[in-house]
Parts: sequence; structure tokens; C-alpha cells
Amino acid sequence: MLQPFMHILNAQRIVLASGSPRRKLILENIGLNIEVMPSTFEENLDKAKYTPPDYVVQTAMFKTQEVAERLSQSGMVPDLIIGADTVVSQGNEIFEKPRDKKDAVRILSQLSNCSHTVYTGVVLYVPSTSLLMSKGSTALNGAYRCTSFVESTSVHMAHLSQDVINAYIETGESMDKAGAYGIQAIGGTLVEKINGDYFNVMGFPLARFAKEIASLYEGVTN
Amino acid sequence: MLQPFMHILNAQRIVLASGSPRRKLILENIGLNIEVMPSTFEENLDKAKYTPPDYVVQTAMFKTQEVAERLSQSGMVPDLIIGADTVVSQGNEIFEKPRDKKDAVRILSQLSNCSHTVYTGVVLYVPSTSLLMSKGSTALNGAYRCTSFVESTSVHMAHLSQDVINAYIETGESMDKAGAYGIQAIGGTLVEKINGDYFNVMGFPLARFAKEIASLYEGVTN
Repeated sequence: MLQPFMHILNAQRIVLASGSPRRKLILENIGLNIEVMPSTFEENLDKAKYTPPDYVVQTAMFKTQEVAERLSQSGMVPDLIIGADTVVSQGNEIFEKPRDKKDAVRILSQLSNCSHTVYTGVVLYVPSTSLLMSKGSTALNGAYRCTSFVESTSVHMAHLSQDVINAYIETGESMDKAGAYGIQAIGGTLVEKINGDYFNVMGFPLARFAKEIASLYEGVTN
Repeated sequence: MLQPFMHILNAQRIVLASGSPRRKLILENIGLNIEVMPSTFEENLDKAKYTPPDYVVQTAMFKTQEVAERLSQSGMVPDLIIGADTVVSQGNEIFEKPRDKKDAVRILSQLSNCSHTVYTGVVLYVPSTSLLMSKGSTALNGAYRCTSFVESTSVHMAHLSQDVINAYIETGESMDKAGAYGIQAIGGTLVEKINGDYFNVMGFPLARFAKEIASLYEGVTN
């Protein structure tokens, strides 16, 4: 979807406000040149106060804002800042990265043989002087305007025996990932099926992002 | 799912009877050591005579058989041979790799804004002397026993304008892929959602493969 705008996008300075190597990979795989600037926001919102989709958008918003302010203070406002946050949720429970191996066992045991939902909130910041988002976005105090969206994907896990859970955790894939699994490598053998965008499960909803970006740039270039 | 058996699998000689770099990548990503030996079978079965799931299993069977016979003649029968074939189907029509750019335009125009199904047939050959598949598989003349399965994933494509289709084909991703798109890179921006196994759309149904292999090895090791 982004190919017709790629020459414009790649003439711009685009900052990814996330340290996730998977988000970087997804965006680079479609040919985008991005700069990575991980946020220092602590991700400590009270989960009891939010639904999962509200939680990821709010966390992505704080992450992006922190990076945007840092860039603004340095006098280097880029053309686009992309922030994102991903959680795994089952019922009302939100799972982030496991605290330790024991926590990873708890999470994977709970996800075994059931469906769960992966939510990713994405926040886009552009300079307030940009032609992008001149309509329908939120003007922020200062240098930026922003827009956001959330994407959900349903994931059905296979039945995981304790042997499989323990052996999987020993591969080292669990610890830095929401829900204690990564779908893109060994964890892919644990997932029976998904309903939605695969890349959203990896941490970034690619198709929806492409659609949103295309509609922003269409508005400017047409 | 395969972790508890990985030490056994990686002590064996496993041959992938396919030249697809994506199938190789998927299997290597889960830690399997495999040897690649592309089949020379011409993939020329009469599509009118098969349903799409029968077509992929039958084609995968001929591909695997060709490689198995070659290995058998050389006196080097491996522990496991994996063959696969993938097609994209809409209604009764089967799409394979596009013949040329014009054909890629035709296929992508037809897939635009609709759902289609990706079928992958997988065939597993083991030596007839193997303890694997001693029950429930088909004994072949000569050196092997075999089993097979087919997995389907539904894919919903976004609306693709002619500009987007032309720009996508210019990226070069279309030509060596069934259905004229690859979901794992730029083509991921064209796919709104899938229902099923993502890796099946890439060309190899990872979760089902892991389950089948685990059940074969459980039968032997327990």
C-alpha cells in the first residue's frame, strides 16, 4: 500500500520511538528508512484503570511523547515519530513481558489450549507545521499534532504440556516478549492459528499502519 | 512443540525436497538442521482434475517421490524427507507463480478486496525400516513409508488500486510466489487479515508440521 509514497517517505526523517528489534525489522522489511530512539517512559500505568486497547494506546502515547519532547528540546523535530505498545490479553487480564521464568511458566500455562488477543496501540506524531494530519488529528501543546489507532489479533495456542513449556522457556525466546512467546521463530510452533494481522502479534500492525500512512500522504499529494 | 524432540531431530539427516528459500528459513528458524534438495518434478498436474487441497498434496507427493528416488539410488536414504507445495485459490481457480508481470497484474487484481485461501500440502517420507510411522502411514514400494497433510489459511486482501499493484510488482516480490505476493515483507502491507497459520501463507504450515512430527516421535520415544 505504501509503494506509491515510498519515495516521499524515504526523503523524510522518521523516528521509531521503540527499542523493539521486531518493530524495526517489520518497518525495514517494507523498505522504510527509520531511526530508532527507544523511549525511557517507564510503562507503569495502572492496568486496573484501562481496558487492554485503551492501555496500549495510552502507553504508546506516553512513550511517543517522551521521545518527541526530547527531540523537540534538541531542536531536531523529525517529519514523523512512530510509537507503539503491545500487550497480550485474556479476559480482563493483561500480560506484558514476564518478570522471570516462573512468571513465563504461569503465562504460557494460562494461554495453553485457549484463545487470547494481542493488542497493539500505535501513535503517530508529526510537526504542528506539517501538512499531514491537518484535519482529524489532535493538536498538542507545542511542536506536534498526533493521531492513534489500535489493532487486535486473536491467537489460538495449541495445548502446551509442561515439558513443552519448560523446553520453550529454555530457548530464551520468552523473556523480552509480551505474553512470554514470540510467534516469528520457535514460538510459531505453539500457535495453532491467528485471526487478524500476523505482524500485530509480532508487535506492529503493518497493514493498518500502511493504510493510515497512505491516507495521510494521499491527502497531501493529491 | 518440537523442543522436547529437538536433540533427536538434530541427530538425524533431514532433507527438504524444495528449493523455496522461505520453507528453508521457517525450518531453520525453529532450530532444525536441514539439507535442501530441490525436486525436479515439473509441477504440471492438470488443475481441472483436482480440488486445490488434493492438488497440493498430489504435487508435494510427486516432488518428494522424485527426491526420495534420487536419494535411494545414491544409496543415501535419509531419516526424513519433507516435501511441500503451496497454491493460492479463489473459488475453483488455482493460482501458482505468475508467468510474467501481466499475469501478476491479473492475479493481484483478482485478489484485491476479497478473501482467498492458501493451501499447502506437506508430505513426509521416512525409510521403511524406520520406527516412525509404523502405524497409520502408507507403505510405498521400496525404501519408504509416507504420510501427508494439508493446511489452509484464509487471507483477506486490502483494496489494491492499479497504482499500488503496479508499484508492488516493480518491487520484484511477485514473480517467484504463488498468488503473486509474499506476505513476509512488502506484501504484508497488502494483507488486511488472515485466519489460520501465517507460516502456511509463507509456504509451510509450521504449527501443524510441529504437531505431526511431535506425534510421530512421541510414539517412538515413549
